[in-house]
Amino acid sequence: MIRPDWIAVDWGTTHLRAFAMGSAATPLAEAVSDDGMGRLAREAFEPALLRLVGGWLDPDRVIPVVACGMVGSRQGWFEAPYRTVPCPALDAGGMVQVPVTDPRLTVRIVPGLNQISPPDVMRGEETQIAGALALNPGFDGVLCLPGTHSKWAQVSAAEVVSFQTFMTGEMFALLSEQSVLRHGMTEPGWDDAAFDAALSETLSRPERIGARLFGLRAEGLIAGLAPGVARARLSGLLIGLELAGSRAYWLGQPVLIVGAARLSALYSRALAAQGVATRQLSATETVLAGLAAARTRMLETSP
Amino acid sequence: MIRPDWIAVDWGTTHLRAFAMGSAATPLAEAVSDDGMGRLAREAFEPALLRLVGGWLDPDRVIPVVACGMVGSRQGWFEAPYRTVPCPALDAGGMVQVPVTDPRLTVRIVPGLNQISPPDVMRGEETQIAGALALNPGFDGVLCLPGTHSKWAQVSAAEVVSFQTFMTGEMFALLSEQSVLRHGMTEPGWDDAAFDAALSETLSRPERIGARLFGLRAEGLIAGLAPGVARARLSGLLIGLELAGSRAYWLGQPVLIVGAARLSALYSRALAAQGVATRQLSATETVLAGLAAARTRMLETSP
Repeated sequence: MIRPDWIAVDWGTTHLRAFAMGSAATPLAEAVSDDGMGRLAREAFEPALLRLVGGWLDPDRVIPVVACGMVGSRQGWFEAPYRTVPCPALDAGGMVQVPVTDPRLTVRIVPGLNQISPPDVMRGEETQIAGALALNPGFDGVLCLPGTHSKWAQVSAAEVVSFQTFMTGEMFALLSEQSVLRHGMTEPGWDDAAFDAALSETLSRPERIGARLFGLRAEGLIAGLAPGVARARLSGLLIGLELAGSRAYWLGQPVLIVGAARLSALYSRALAAQGVATRQLSATETVLAGLAAARTRMLETSP
Repeated sequence: MIRPDWIAVDWGTTHLRAFAMGSAATPLAEAVSDDGMGRLAREAFEPALLRLVGGWLDPDRVIPVVACGMVGSRQGWFEAPYRTVPCPALDAGGMVQVPVTDPRLTVRIVPGLNQISPPDVMRGEETQIAGALALNPGFDGVLCLPGTHSKWAQVSAAEVVSFQTFMTGEMFALLSEQSVLRHGMTEPGWDDAAFDAALSETLSRPERIGARLFGLRAEGLIAGLAPGVARARLSGLLIGLELAGSRAYWLGQPVLIVGAARLSALYSRALAAQGVATRQLSATETVLAGLAAARTRMLETSP
């Protein structure tokens, strides 16, 4: 029987992930469902959470839940208004308590960050950044958080100074699954050399990407371009465009990459080709460390 | 009762358009259906054509049908193998006769063009180019055919010398209708100044487009960016990227734009801002002139 001290929740647009936490950093148990914020009406959030973690609750005790991600957006369960950079990634005062009907739990949501100029927003990544800082005390420098909406962030003196978002992952999904390019990527496969060459090309000549995208389809039709080569080249073109646009972040700087292992390795490979040293942290480990840091701040500031 | 000499057909991925042609350039009648090549199995093409033009056929006479577009692709009705540039836009010898069961008509398909390096393909636009040349005898220079897959073509001495395709229209549709940006574009509207500024920005700094795309969403969330401004800016960013990549085609050259009126006007505006003079031709007029030219070549070369 799992009896956690508290429950950590990473609640994004497509998935709900919950972790039963004891006194250690490693979860006692974890659970996931596809009850992402994107498919839930406001009144469906508490039932979705109870479906997933009901078995960890205790009728004789109130268990605190600390959540981050799109659950705190205006279209989510309960809005946790953005905090504006420059600011620390976490601040106990900004956390929002969500009204719940079940007496066995309390729920608090970590707010996202925004940036006025250039306009930008994040929800969830601030918790990963806080986690990365908790795991690397005193870290000063650049973080890269690759994903559907990749983020680059400059952190200094424990504050997020600035950040920038790229739609790289979403563009890859749209182009490889829904555009005319999907016809050339119906089979699995990958080609490192094709990734490297495409990356290098958009990094040095970003204006070519428009023509190079349709070229993947054309080369498939007239020269039998292999699906794995096409997929790797599409990835290289898009990550190359992201690196071309984020150069001010990574040029001459070591970069801490926080993300899924396979994607982080691709970014690490791409940055290494530009002479940039990287370290990788797991997305799950950092989000847990960030939620744990949020809980600690809460406890410290509770009356 | 419509009794055409021949029938012109523009058969793309999403639509089938047929024109009853007499001796003049203006059609006697036209008809359209959404029986595009994309939704038809091979045996469904002839019935789809008969549904649309059956009323124009004559039991006592064989009426020739001349078609262009994706109908001639490998996944279409009958494959019309690509001709390779440099070559004239049309060549009667490359036209493919399609076997049909109905004795009242013959069907011929105009083949598309391909380019070996850089790899590229077109199907349908070669007929518009031929039509533009028929309407402007002796034309030498650059054509721009904006659309789902925009084409730029260099024409010299009545041959297509080279061409390049950009997925601008498809990217606009995916981003404005299916990506996270759709949330900021749910209402109609447009803003010329936003279009101009975004165009100028990607033209001069194409590497910024990655960050500027998500910026549309962020500015909507934190500063209430108007849907019309967001849409115009997205269009400007994407057309700007196309112009950045097609600079070798238009720099210092007058450009003949062939396309839908509203989209052609946008390209004309964008090119004018770069000091490029343009003329516009209607897509329908050029495709009809191209199909008419194809028919004339056929008659000339018939035994």
